[in-house]
Amino acid sequence: MSSGKLPSKSHDFFGWYNEVIYQAQLVDESPTRGCVVLRPYGYALWENIVHIMDKRFKEKGIENAYFPLLIPESFLKKEAKHVEGFSPELAVVTHAGGKQLEEPYVIRPTSETIIYHMMARWITSWRDLPMQLNQWANVVRWEMRTRPFLRTSEFLWQEGHTAHATREEALEKAKEMLGVYIKFITEELCIPIFAGEKTPKERFAGGDATFTMEGMMPDGKALQMGTSHLLAHSFPAAYGVQFQDKDGQMKSPWCTSWGTTTRMIGAAVMVHGDDAGLVLPPAIAQYQVVIVPIFKTDEEKVTVLAAANAQKQALENADIRVHIDARDERPGAKFFHWELRGVPIRLELGPRDVAQQSLMMAPRIVAEGADRKITVAFDALVGTVHGALKTFAQLLFTRAKTYRDAQLSNATKGTLESFGKNIEAYNGFVKAGWCFDRACEEALVAYKGSIRCILDEMVPDEAQCFGCQKPATHVVLAAKSY
Amino acid sequence: MSSGKLPSKSHDFFGWYNEVIYQAQLVDESPTRGCVVLRPYGYALWENIVHIMDKRFKEKGIENAYFPLLIPESFLKKEAKHVEGFSPELAVVTHAGGKQLEEPYVIRPTSETIIYHMMARWITSWRDLPMQLNQWANVVRWEMRTRPFLRTSEFLWQEGHTAHATREEALEKAKEMLGVYIKFITEELCIPIFAGEKTPKERFAGGDATFTMEGMMPDGKALQMGTSHLLAHSFPAAYGVQFQDKDGQMKSPWCTSWGTTTRMIGAAVMVHGDDAGLVLPPAIAQYQVVIVPIFKTDEEKVTVLAAANAQKQALENADIRVHIDARDERPGAKFFHWELRGVPIRLELGPRDVAQQSLMMAPRIVAEGADRKITVAFDALVGTVHGALKTFAQLLFTRAKTYRDAQLSNATKGTLESFGKNIEAYNGFVKAGWCFDRACEEALVAYKGSIRCILDEMVPDEAQCFGCQKPATHVVLAAKSY
Repeated sequence: MSSGKLPSKSHDFFGWYNEVIYQAQLVDESPTRGCVVLRPYGYALWENIVHIMDKRFKEKGIENAYFPLLIPESFLKKEAKHVEGFSPELAVVTHAGGKQLEEPYVIRPTSETIIYHMMARWITSWRDLPMQLNQWANVVRWEMRTRPFLRTSEFLWQEGHTAHATREEALEKAKEMLGVYIKFITEELCIPIFAGEKTPKERFAGGDATFTMEGMMPDGKALQMGTSHLLAHSFPAAYGVQFQDKDGQMKSPWCTSWGTTTRMIGAAVMVHGDDAGLVLPPAIAQYQVVIVPIFKTDEEKVTVLAAANAQKQALENADIRVHIDARDERPGAKFFHWELRGVPIRLELGPRDVAQQSLMMAPRIVAEGADRKITVAFDALVGTVHGALKTFAQLLFTRAKTYRDAQLSNATKGTLESFGKNIEAYNGFVKAGWCFDRACEEALVAYKGSIRCILDEMVPDEAQCFGCQKPATHVVLAAKSY
Repeated sequence: MSSGKLPSKSHDFFGWYNEVIYQAQLVDESPTRGCVVLRPYGYALWENIVHIMDKRFKEKGIENAYFPLLIPESFLKKEAKHVEGFSPELAVVTHAGGKQLEEPYVIRPTSETIIYHMMARWITSWRDLPMQLNQWANVVRWEMRTRPFLRTSEFLWQEGHTAHATREEALEKAKEMLGVYIKFITEELCIPIFAGEKTPKERFAGGDATFTMEGMMPDGKALQMGTSHLLAHSFPAAYGVQFQDKDGQMKSPWCTSWGTTTRMIGAAVMVHGDDAGLVLPPAIAQYQVVIVPIFKTDEEKVTVLAAANAQKQALENADIRVHIDARDERPGAKFFHWELRGVPIRLELGPRDVAQQSLMMAPRIVAEGADRKITVAFDALVGTVHGALKTFAQLLFTRAKTYRDAQLSNATKGTLESFGKNIEAYNGFVKAGWCFDRACEEALVAYKGSIRCILDEMVPDEAQCFGCQKPATHVVLAAKSY
């Protein structure tokens, strides 16, 4: 493992990304193709994500369950579009227990097929609906090109699966869960996003409507941060899921699925980090505060560590995650260490501070013009740190939104020729008019772009389709994407 | 799904076990050989286990990480005993991404091999030690005979892996983590166990010492509840894990691994359940308390539900997990429903109770001679329920220990002939003398028994080996096992 200077984020974005995640020990390379190891400092981010989101799912009536990793190969074939979408990426178990299997199993790329098989056993009447399940699990998709967090052969995720009596109710649930994601991504990950519906071309394999959230990465490309689907009515039917409705009729329920993955960690690294290393959103950081004790003599060490421990305790009592770096290293080396690891707030505490019952607070980043360090009295520490963490999160969001908005252009009256070259050359997002025709949508491919989502916005007067110049019926977000 | 009367636990133990876990909706059959689906009510038990144990691991300095599911086949072959132990059970991925793989991957049966591969990258100096990792994950072992929770082709578990500079320190850690397990199993799962070391014959494939906990199931057989291993020194060395010690010498670290699984849920079901259904230990029950509102008119319903909600809130504020069963069913049907599901405490609340500001408390089981129901005033409810949950857990443990001790015989001066037939015919545990000779140990096989563990007990004067009748050097626990 190298631990030298990082490449510049603005000059060598991917060089920077690949180095910062290894040097900060979020991940390491693994011997398994396209997979990384999540080291403790990286896995802790996922644990915090799980903790926050799981609680919110449960508040929405979602229950967790666990389904088998291995799915009979024939299950995927029951829904034609679904198997078409996933079969190039499947990992297949052909041998087990020392023998060739009669029917191979695929490692789940997603679990709709086996979950519908089970729902067919569990759902018989309208009284069994809604059924609202979620699974925290690993999935495998054997992707050609991989990048840590953003796209790996195995990844950790949650997949929600619900069944409802009516299309309206299912659609409402798909949107409700998208709302849970939007709140988490904007408030906790501090990343601004555009949310909207995918075009029919870009939908989930087997979906009737796919909702997405698109964040802008620092290279101006769009990253899909999570999706929520209303599934085609034929999908649960293909697995025999039926219920007797209040009117006595047998019907197929309407289903949703929705998922987010460890990819969210990659997005937070990309959007917030800088040339000194990670800059972590406080909600997911393993440590929100690091205390660096400063001392020369053994006597000073005793005094300073006692004070550091007392302040740590006070902060922890207020549910703030704190670490004291008591290693045998120079303070400067510790500052560098925790800057690289993106801890939001550093507290420095020496013998003179203890004498004055105060310490120095240095946030990892501050707003332009603000003091980089301030003195805080012990008895004001908890309140000050609470406020500083909140300010820190707001600063991350504002900074990311300012950047995003500067790379966003409005071309609802423009043509593909007028903005396509810009997408190809400089990236960035374009709001464009669209006529809903697939041929127009596909014209974007020539510029390496795509429609990321249909925005829920009024179509301006005289807006025209970027492709055919006919009157636009929709406003869409066009961009290059990961 | 059937939901009829359960078979009698005492007359048809396995019939009872298989029915109770399905009827109480802990699990359902799956289309994947040897795997079950963990339904929400069953998965919630695992979530509570994870929550409690994870916190205790972290208090011992353990950090969570995540390693790939798929391990290159060649990795397992580097340690001869390890591959010998696991190869009959492996599930093998031979195709992925539409192509045959050059080297197959095995789905992890356990992760030592890939973790040591990574530790070889991370450990270079004594300063990097101890390294103390844990992983919560799914593993696959393609077992011949499976039974829900006890032995399934895929199961959920945690696997701890630590590396230390010295054998003493590693051995101490292996025992410390065993201690964490013992505390959890006896205090939270309320199951008495015998803990001790495995014989060389029964050790982990690649281990130097294996510590185990053996619980007695209601059929008198032993169930291994979890293990902790000191690994053979050659094991990390086979993966190139080395460090420079303080003396400047390159050395191989000493390693431990330790694991517990969803099997613990099966043990709790078996040990505590009765002919009416599950009896759940309060620490892991999804709901510790269920409130059954009783009313006839709509007006009564409003009054009763308001009071039920107020009491629920009070209990939840005291960290008690409560559910109000407001379904449109008769109270008797609800009592049956929650008895089957083993909720520790039922509260019944009708309009007359509301008028008297009190309710009826009915624990799922009570000590012999105790009242099955008592009246509790609203303002004494939180304290009374707290106490009742504690009493409930103690009762479960005492009841299980009384049963276990009645099936435990002492034969440290006996011969295999004198107790072997009893083990074969009636099951139960036997404390016996042993000379440490493998030939004597293997004589137990004729009676379908085995040495479950070597007990850390004084060898009584004149104790003799059950096999050769020579003076015993150890006291062992002999039994049939799962």
